Amino acid sequence: MQLGMIGLGKMGGNMARRLQAGGITIHGFNKDSGVTEQLAEEIGLVAAASIRALVDSLDAPRRLWLMLPAGEVTEAVVRELFDALSPGDLIVDGGNSWFKDSMRRAVEAREHGIGFVDAGVSGGIWGLENGYTLMAGGSDDAIAAIEPLLKILAPQADKGWIHTGPAGSGHFTKMIHNGIEYGMMQAYAEGFALLKGRDDFDLDLAGIAETWRHGSVVRSWLLDLSAGLLAKDQQLDGIEPIVADSGEGRWTALEAIEQGVPTPVMSLALMTRFASQGQQDYSARLLARMRQEFGGHPVIAAEAD
Amino acid sequence: MQLGMIGLGKMGGNMARRLQAGGITIHGFNKDSGVTEQLAEEIGLVAAASIRALVDSLDAPRRLWLMLPAGEVTEAVVRELFDALSPGDLIVDGGNSWFKDSMRRAVEAREHGIGFVDAGVSGGIWGLENGYTLMAGGSDDAIAAIEPLLKILAPQADKGWIHTGPAGSGHFTKMIHNGIEYGMMQAYAEGFALLKGRDDFDLDLAGIAETWRHGSVVRSWLLDLSAGLLAKDQQLDGIEPIVADSGEGRWTALEAIEQGVPTPVMSLALMTRFASQGQQDYSARLLARMRQEFGGHPVIAAEAD
Repeated sequence: MQLGMIGLGKMGGNMARRLQAGGITIHGFNKDSGVTEQLAEEIGLVAAASIRALVDSLDAPRRLWLMLPAGEVTEAVVRELFDALSPGDLIVDGGNSWFKDSMRRAVEAREHGIGFVDAGVSGGIWGLENGYTLMAGGSDDAIAAIEPLLKILAPQADKGWIHTGPAGSGHFTKMIHNGIEYGMMQAYAEGFALLKGRDDFDLDLAGIAETWRHGSVVRSWLLDLSAGLLAKDQQLDGIEPIVADSGEGRWTALEAIEQGVPTPVMSLALMTRFASQGQQDYSARLLARMRQEFGGHPVIAAEAD
Repeated sequence: MQLGMIGLGKMGGNMARRLQAGGITIHGFNKDSGVTEQLAEEIGLVAAASIRALVDSLDAPRRLWLMLPAGEVTEAVVRELFDALSPGDLIVDGGNSWFKDSMRRAVEAREHGIGFVDAGVSGGIWGLENGYTLMAGGSDDAIAAIEPLLKILAPQADKGWIHTGPAGSGHFTKMIHNGIEYGMMQAYAEGFALLKGRDDFDLDLAGIAETWRHGSVVRSWLLDLSAGLLAKDQQLDGIEPIVADSGEGRWTALEAIEQGVPTPVMSLALMTRFASQGQQDYSARLLARMRQEFGGHPVIAAEAD
């Protein structure tokens, strides 16, 4: 079985490795061709110099798997594929696209006679070894066409992948997965901050995290990772206290507003990241000025740059 | 080795089973003596009819392990033990006491020549099978005296237990553990609510939870439990939407205020439980009336009971 993969970065590259090891012949294209050439050498991937060349190198019906940044990049490649592919071919978007984009693209793909699957993929850089969790939306026929791939990518052939429902439902499920992830990560981080904050106990945060991995109610894979990173450095003084966010957390908050269903913890975890990015600074300055205005409380003048 | 256990409920009873199976001779007292008698029959526990009788049945130096409700019950039993025990004996409080109570009790115990360990225990009703996570605060000597017990109770002799530091630090660490638990649980619950809320996808919540268990970033023991309960019933219509809270969540929020360290997610998870208990109703009624007052928006009259 052949698969064309577009986007061979941290996620796509390792997925190509896992699929090729599972007996799939991977044809690959990456914007930075050095990555493609390295994978050609490492795992025997068939390197393509362009999307058109990639499509031409595959036998029909073709299957193309995209692991690209959501938004404009994915949109441009999907449009290019609509032109390059033939009826009967199939596109899998394995990136973190917004599920409403995936619903629209599935309709547009159908107009071209092309199949479309939105496959949410979780597992990060550890997926090569552990396998990936896959949440796939699309028609029964489309899912059947990629089932061999799902079974190789998943941790086990019958575990860790699911046909969630119609097109869009895969990326929707992945979006909620990531929203939960925001809340969980924030809960752990706050807890460890309080452990660190009571310095009269001089607690060994790495030891506590390691202990919690065994038998406790809060044991999880994120805790496994945290125990590992705290064992290396639990002061973290060398890390700027800035946490990035990507689309999924914001879309989850918007989904809650659209549904009118309260998700205070997931939404606040997102807001806390915004604050870490400096986006709370204006309101904090304004609060300091208000206190000065009504109570004469001093403000701290910012240092000139 | 002998151990006197006071409190043989869901947690204490199973811990007695695990310890007795590990070769410890358990002498037990429980307020409801039926429980003690049943354990005497089931595992050969030495039943005592009173705390005084329990103490008298043990060889010195005695070790007493309490698994009791935090607060007045634990306080009363600790005071009774201060009178009944002899210098050189040792009390382990395995309940969810507030860590500042444990710090005070350790000082008072020392005045009686009695050792004191505050041992936070996690693992719930599954600990009998999986082992318990133990976070123990106290002096090196006190911890050494109960180390054989910790090694039996933990999932493995060298994993899942830790000497966190001085007296109080064990219950402090357990308190933070539970605060994290509040946040994690809330994040999952909100996520599944959004999955359920987008009913046009008709998602299989149990199937998604089961899928996430394998390879996903949000895999955890709490997710394992959730997958199991959702497989039995994912509508949950038969459950009143009321979530209780116990001391630990409140104390974690108070700790954040004492430290002046923000824990928005853990604190809001607690507030969300208060809301579920009906404690948001007055503010919601008042908001509805305000909207009526300034905008003429209708309010819904409560049904007469």
